[in-house]
Amino acid sequence: MSYHSGRHFLQIPGPTNVPDRVLHAIGQPTIDHRGPEFQKLSEEVLLGCRRIFKTSSPVIIYPASGTGAWEAGLINTLSPGDKVLMFETGHFATLWCTMARKFGLEVDFVPTNWRHGADPQIVEEKLKADTERKIKSVNIVHNETSTGVTSRIAEIRQAMDNAGHPALLMVDTISSLGSVDYRHEEWKVDVTVGCSQKGLMLPPGLGFNAVSEKALEASKHNGFNRHFWDWNDMLKSNANYWYPSTPSTNLLFGLREAIQMLEEEGLDNVFARHQRFAEATRRAVRTWGLEILCEEPKEYSPVLTTVMMPENKGGDAFRKVVLNAFNMSLGSGLGKVADKVFRIGHLGYLNDLTLIGTLAGVEMGLELAGIKHQKGGAQVAMEYLAQQAAAR
Amino acid sequence: MSYHSGRHFLQIPGPTNVPDRVLHAIGQPTIDHRGPEFQKLSEEVLLGCRRIFKTSSPVIIYPASGTGAWEAGLINTLSPGDKVLMFETGHFATLWCTMARKFGLEVDFVPTNWRHGADPQIVEEKLKADTERKIKSVNIVHNETSTGVTSRIAEIRQAMDNAGHPALLMVDTISSLGSVDYRHEEWKVDVTVGCSQKGLMLPPGLGFNAVSEKALEASKHNGFNRHFWDWNDMLKSNANYWYPSTPSTNLLFGLREAIQMLEEEGLDNVFARHQRFAEATRRAVRTWGLEILCEEPKEYSPVLTTVMMPENKGGDAFRKVVLNAFNMSLGSGLGKVADKVFRIGHLGYLNDLTLIGTLAGVEMGLELAGIKHQKGGAQVAMEYLAQQAAAR
Amino acid sequence: MSYHSGRHFLQIPGPTNVPDRVLHAIGQPTIDHRGPEFQKLSEEVLLGCRRIFKTSSPVIIYPASGTGAWEAGLINTLSPGDKVLMFETGHFATLWCTMARKFGLEVDFVPTNWRHGADPQIVEEKLKADTERKIKSVNIVHNETSTGVTSRIAEIRQAMDNAGHPALLMVDTISSLGSVDYRHEEWKVDVTVGCSQKGLMLPPGLGFNAVSEKALEASKHNGFNRHFWDWNDMLKSNANYWYPSTPSTNLLFGLREAIQMLEEEGLDNVFARHQRFAEATRRAVRTWGLEILCEEPKEYSPVLTTVMMPENKGGDAFRKVVLNAFNMSLGSGLGKVADKVFRIGHLGYLNDLTLIGTLAGVEMGLELAGIKHQKGGAQVAMEYLAQQAAAR
Amino acid sequence: MSYHSGRHFLQIPGPTNVPDRVLHAIGQPTIDHRGPEFQKLSEEVLLGCRRIFKTSSPVIIYPASGTGAWEAGLINTLSPGDKVLMFETGHFATLWCTMARKFGLEVDFVPTNWRHGADPQIVEEKLKADTERKIKSVNIVHNETSTGVTSRIAEIRQAMDNAGHPALLMVDTISSLGSVDYRHEEWKVDVTVGCSQKGLMLPPGLGFNAVSEKALEASKHNGFNRHFWDWNDMLKSNANYWYPSTPSTNLLFGLREAIQMLEEEGLDNVFARHQRFAEATRRAVRTWGLEILCEEPKEYSPVLTTVMMPENKGGDAFRKVVLNAFNMSLGSGLGKVADKVFRIGHLGYLNDLTLIGTLAGVEMGLELAGIKHQKGGAQVAMEYLAQQAAAR
Repeated sequence: MSYHSGRHFLQIPGPTNVPDRVLHAIGQPTIDHRGPEFQKLSEEVLLGCRRIFKTSSPVIIYPASGTGAWEAGLINTLSPGDKVLMFETGHFATLWCTMARKFGLEVDFVPTNWRHGADPQIVEEKLKADTERKIKSVNIVHNETSTGVTSRIAEIRQAMDNAGHPALLMVDTISSLGSVDYRHEEWKVDVTVGCSQKGLMLPPGLGFNAVSEKALEASKHNGFNRHFWDWNDMLKSNANYWYPSTPSTNLLFGLREAIQMLEEEGLDNVFARHQRFAEATRRAVRTWGLEILCEEPKEYSPVLTTVMMPENKGGDAFRKVVLNAFNMSLGSGLGKVADKVFRIGHLGYLNDLTLIGTLAGVEMGLELAGIKHQKGGAQVAMEYLAQQAAAR
Repeated sequence: MSYHSGRHFLQIPGPTNVPDRVLHAIGQPTIDHRGPEFQKLSEEVLLGCRRIFKTSSPVIIYPASGTGAWEAGLINTLSPGDKVLMFETGHFATLWCTMARKFGLEVDFVPTNWRHGADPQIVEEKLKADTERKIKSVNIVHNETSTGVTSRIAEIRQAMDNAGHPALLMVDTISSLGSVDYRHEEWKVDVTVGCSQKGLMLPPGLGFNAVSEKALEASKHNGFNRHFWDWNDMLKSNANYWYPSTPSTNLLFGLREAIQMLEEEGLDNVFARHQRFAEATRRAVRTWGLEILCEEPKEYSPVLTTVMMPENKGGDAFRKVVLNAFNMSLGSGLGKVADKVFRIGHLGYLNDLTLIGTLAGVEMGLELAGIKHQKGGAQVAMEYLAQQAAAR
Repeated sequence: MSYHSGRHFLQIPGPTNVPDRVLHAIGQPTIDHRGPEFQKLSEEVLLGCRRIFKTSSPVIIYPASGTGAWEAGLINTLSPGDKVLMFETGHFATLWCTMARKFGLEVDFVPTNWRHGADPQIVEEKLKADTERKIKSVNIVHNETSTGVTSRIAEIRQAMDNAGHPALLMVDTISSLGSVDYRHEEWKVDVTVGCSQKGLMLPPGLGFNAVSEKALEASKHNGFNRHFWDWNDMLKSNANYWYPSTPSTNLLFGLREAIQMLEEEGLDNVFARHQRFAEATRRAVRTWGLEILCEEPKEYSPVLTTVMMPENKGGDAFRKVVLNAFNMSLGSGLGKVADKVFRIGHLGYLNDLTLIGTLAGVEMGLELAGIKHQKGGAQVAMEYLAQQAAAR
Repeated sequence: MSYHSGRHFLQIPGPTNVPDRVLHAIGQPTIDHRGPEFQKLSEEVLLGCRRIFKTSSPVIIYPASGTGAWEAGLINTLSPGDKVLMFETGHFATLWCTMARKFGLEVDFVPTNWRHGADPQIVEEKLKADTERKIKSVNIVHNETSTGVTSRIAEIRQAMDNAGHPALLMVDTISSLGSVDYRHEEWKVDVTVGCSQKGLMLPPGLGFNAVSEKALEASKHNGFNRHFWDWNDMLKSNANYWYPSTPSTNLLFGLREAIQMLEEEGLDNVFARHQRFAEATRRAVRTWGLEILCEEPKEYSPVLTTVMMPENKGGDAFRKVVLNAFNMSLGSGLGKVADKVFRIGHLGYLNDLTLIGTLAGVEMGLELAGIKHQKGGAQVAMEYLAQQAAAR
């Protein structure tokens, strides 16, 4: 079908559905990035970001995507040849590892079956074993966007503390920030990497680094050449709410609006909403008789659910059916689960009815694509959401 | 709950959900309404409207709401004291009758139980009995927005022809135009009254009169003073695509876009989509064990479904529960069915998933409001929509 | 030239350049006009309008253009055959007179040469002579959009008081409201007619009637049939911030924003800005050696300046040159000054630099069109504006 | 003054005034960057960029600012320790040099007085003298945004050819692209660096590298670690119109619209318009009796004019006067001309009247700030523009 009535359901795990308020904000006329009106905007977003990352330390905003923010985290703190501990929790962790290796870092990349998060116990063991303190950084993906599995950052922090090891803790919150509870300062994270197009409900185009004092200290002596990504240039300019090069003004308009929306709803309400939608989704998936990729309930992602395709059925063909018949985009399998799974994004700007529409699109799509399943998944999700609504 | 994430579900039977494309069109800078760029816009919308009304005769666009377009229809063709045949098919037919009486017209207002459309047989009988040709006009509401009951215009036209009576035929297509098949010329309608905020997917603010040659002729000799609503002034200016007073430029931007969207989808596809959504909705209502107000299947509305509340339960309290819990607006009962029904709008810019979200909101709302019902309405609707999708 | 870079200069005396903030407001998703969010919007605009009209009495907002608001003023207060005193101050006063006559009102239409406003002395004489109190209304256009001549409402009020005559005072503020000081209550105006697309900086589509207690009283006993325009239906609904028929929701979004912008700038600052721009424009016109249509300095319009074409030169050809060469729309001559004048709009959302751009476009256009003139008009305007800026 | 009516005049040399069409495009809902609709968008912009850069080779689009695109140019082609020939034509050339040195490149940085472009003769001499072929790249800023001086790329190319030297030619077109004639392929440029917020009339947030075959070949063997900026990853994905990481979807919507607007106007018309505006501006500056920073008429910038402040007068205080009094942003002096000059941007989406408004703002500002000058600059510019319009 070439024409679709009604709004598209963008239910990939990011970019997410951008609210009209944010789109309108982005559509405002660009202003002088060296003038007083900009300076006020800049102050608001730089301080607002600290509240979202839950930190009193600086947050750096790059006019770039999240991949760039990954790179910034690595090259501002480490040096060629440094050892880094990472976990193969999925496609994005693998990409981060690949990036690190490209820069000459020596990554100890702990394998998983892509169905679990990073294991705090392994962190503790590895660090304790590292008596020479060669490991300079532990890098964890908080929410693996390719699998719908989270890693328990507070426990990993605890493991590091137990080991008494001085390595930096670097966390990718690309798809969790603004949707899942995250505490940069309380968890003593040194570099938190984020981006705009997921829980922040913005289009892609902004990357973030929240940085600890310890990370800043490391950045003063580390060994990578850099300019665009350099924290110190940024922070020097940011001190007066300016930027060393032209910032992405219109996305900053959107960021201001998005922060305001998150705070109007209340971050705790936002987090609870995502937990609710994730539980409703999992109930639907189980009712259909399909398998959730994540094997550990404590590690279920609040922002997306990855569903395994039954044998002999391709996820990509299924997603195409759903797109053509129901005007909904679902996430594809990536890397080693390509075509073997599909991903349901349930993050950002959505509500109970949008979620049911989403689950209905999956359920009707299963029917159309001839994939064996039990009906009633959306129905079960509705019952759960109605109970939850009654309890509010 | 004071804050809602996600887009509001505006599922009243109009105003409907305005597409982003139309909102953007409306948000363009206003232009000189006496300049060449405007003239081109005006030509496009005046001719485009003829395709939507299915007529080769003029369509007049008022910078006013549909109520004004009703008034224009009456006072451009009739004279004080004229006899008019109308049917009490619901709240809006009653309002139109009230308006006619305010202008001194003598209305023969045929009662119904609000659960049926205008009866073609009664039309034929009344006209045959009117041997003195005192009835100057037969005024019918095509789709009663307050009840979800349509009147069969082609059959009413046939009844008038059978009677060989010269009365004008005036039809209100306020909530059917652009959603339900309608043929101004083929059905020999003399005045068709329409507006912007329903099937045309625009905000309120434009009213339409499609007029036949016969109606135009009547307008040259009738007996009401008028200026703003005067067809002849309008048509004289419209001949060169101008207007006698300032037109509603920005809504005309939106109208151009809306006509283009309807034609991209194809009017027949649009009509079929509305039929499909209406059937899905009725299946859900029946599954819940609730009663549809419309008693005659041939007269089911493709654009809204009015549902009767069970005994002792108020529709307004129910709608409030749904609004607060699920961020969805449903239509209230109006006039003599106030609080006794609620109305589900399923017209305009929506798709299968939006409809399931809508039905889920009703079903979960019934649960929350403690209204006795069978679960599974949304589920049944999904099964129907999946079958229909498979058949496309 | 078929393509123009840069924003169009819409320098007709309305519609005016709509601010981005207002366009964005209008582009928001339409909401349920019977829901709580709408009710809040409605309260804000209904009360906000009172501040703009400077009245504590009701202001009625029609989903219609200003022409409709004229009609509403007449038919809500007067009766067929009533005598009305009007002044032929220009094209729009003439149209209002034509409208009144169409409705069977007996208009005493005092002629002018279109270069003066309504004469308070004549008002006083006419009313004093009307010992039988046959004159039911004195209708004045505050700012004649076709001529750039204002009428002095406070003096006309005084004249009416001097005569001790009970006639209503009806004033058209179509092109003055929101740009020129206007005081509905202080000047004891009974009906003030306004619209959206001039000083309120909105697109066309809203008409206003501010009504006095005396006018409301008249409306309860007068002799015109009406429905759409009926004040009493409106006020009954407006009491709870509802409307008897569907309001123009998206323009009301814009109205809220526009009122806020006027109040952010401060009405007195807005009025002073318009006076400043008008004086700058007149200095430019005089420098060019062209003649201003308005002959009485006390009656110069703050919102537009009408310039007389030199002998043998058509205004329309000149305007076309300006449009094609400089992407600027100027106002045409209307009615009996058609092609003999052009009009420079300097109202609404504009600033010093926009005004100089406008005057430059006129001056360069005079050159291109081969119209004899002295250069330096824009230069003189700049000098005046710089002085004024220095004095702020 | 805290409130300004009318649109801001953003007359810095970028970001420029973004057209409404582009702002609307950017405000469209974000789409799936792995879906068919995105793929079509991507194809349009990737191929459209080639027409703007005038090349049949690939153009790479980064979700990043122009500074990032500089970095990408360097680290994709060169190796640590490589020798680079650059010219100190102004602040941005100096920054690029600083960046290169940060990456360990050995820059031969030829000084200028900031009032001339890069000297082709010096290029030829330096390359001829480099018999060991140690110079790997000649890096030139086409239009120095800090000075309003251009460098003659065709002549520099000729100089390189005369020397028969194999160095790469890298050109920064940050502020010239889309405003000044530029020919990547014809001039055999190897890397052209561009960005979104100048002649492309977009907000900041996109950086570009147009790359030659020779540059691509160099990129396969050079010595910098990289990931985010890596051309080869990009081109591999771009081959099917995808991206290796999330692209800046909404800015790409805007880019598509901007390319369409440039092509509707016609690139040659765009270039001629900028030449016209620059000449008009220089005539104004000379009339004021102020000095243009650029000393070489052949090197005058078509996109901005840098004006030297008279002795003892600070440019920043002057710009502040203009901003506060006239709601216009002018460019500040940067680097070693900080506070000694101001810059008038006359690029992107503007027309004759906007330009006169701009010059009027400067002229009135000079008056207000008490800076000695002759009046009549805007007047002289008007005369020039009127002549030019007559000649079209």
